[in-house]
Amino acid sequence: MRVKHKPWAKDYKEQSTSFINKEDITSDLFINDNPVHLELGMGKGEFLITLAKQNPNINYIGIEVQLSAQVMAAKKLEDENLANIKLLNIDVKDLLEIKYLVNNIDVIYLNFSDPWPKNRHAKRRLTHINFLNIYNDLLSDDGIIKFKTDNDILFESSLENISLSNFIIEQVILDLHSHQEIENIQTEYEKKFSQKGFKIKLIKLKKGK
Amino acid sequence: MRVKHKPWAKDYKEQSTSFINKEDITSDLFINDNPVHLELGMGKGEFLITLAKQNPNINYIGIEVQLSAQVMAAKKLEDENLANIKLLNIDVKDLLEIKYLVNNIDVIYLNFSDPWPKNRHAKRRLTHINFLNIYNDLLSDDGIIKFKTDNDILFESSLENISLSNFIIEQVILDLHSHQEIENIQTEYEKKFSQKGFKIKLIKLKKGK
Repeated sequence: MRVKHKPWAKDYKEQSTSFINKEDITSDLFINDNPVHLELGMGKGEFLITLAKQNPNINYIGIEVQLSAQVMAAKKLEDENLANIKLLNIDVKDLLEIKYLVNNIDVIYLNFSDPWPKNRHAKRRLTHINFLNIYNDLLSDDGIIKFKTDNDILFESSLENISLSNFIIEQVILDLHSHQEIENIQTEYEKKFSQKGFKIKLIKLKKGK
Repeated sequence: MRVKHKPWAKDYKEQSTSFINKEDITSDLFINDNPVHLELGMGKGEFLITLAKQNPNINYIGIEVQLSAQVMAAKKLEDENLANIKLLNIDVKDLLEIKYLVNNIDVIYLNFSDPWPKNRHAKRRLTHINFLNIYNDLLSDDGIIKFKTDNDILFESSLENISLSNFIIEQVILDLHSHQEIENIQTEYEKKFSQKGFKIKLIKLKKGK
């Protein structure tokens, strides 16, 4: 979801304790050995903050390239006392540069990633095979990906790309909200678009052996 | 689609020249070297007969276990002069017994297979991994599967099973009828259920190397 440019975002990031830099991500970051989960494209962070509150024994890093969205998450975090969530403002393609993350992530969340519906932009989709290969390197051996979208083109092309990857499709759901037995934290975007009648689709992946 | 039991079906099959037996399927069957395509679960045959008329240079074998449906196809074929279509009344699980078919099929069509929506019947779905492994043996190296369904449970479990198989997902479409550029012969079932608002989904698979 595009957000309005915030000229103050850069300064805000510098003084915020929620933001970390690539260099900060070492085994010392969370001062514990709890599992690390990532959300790629965390936007304004509603989903990740809810998750972090519910699971104090899991460490979360929220990745987002749009700083104007991500500072909204930092603002929300100001009032919370959450030691298990950190924000990182980088491009997903650069994640493998952070050695501590490699083969160390148990769950990757992809929520309503930009669908880039035009074919010529297919490589920008966060489920393109080039990105899936990065996730394969980031995830631990039992690591999983949970991907949600309401967009048909993104859903279709994701499955085609997954099929070329090392991942195994553990679960596909075409209408997540019709399954009340499945625990689901809705993102801000998800609430808005499911109310408009868009079906929320889920794909859960595990690493192949 | 279940059809009413027809007590005359068995006798009709015996005298019909459209039906063949397993033993008849040899290189002599069609008296030419044209490619062989299968439809698994041909029902009353509307789809396969249309296809056979359009493509005289392709040989078609329609497989169906419900004889009461399949004799309706034989009846339609009586008035046609089609040398490139034959009907075989056997269970899909027995197809590998026919040596001529193994590694010799270029296209397998699965149209609106019974979804067997209950979990305990999952093994009966024609896209269960046990069946996909049979198709893998039937198909030639460049062979493909074209699978259509309107059923969410079957679609979801098909993708999960495909992921365990040797097949690569070449194309997924969530709403086939919205793509007017894609050539599509509608089955009788498809016409009826798309009119009721059900979205027709397609998965196209190719053999992995």
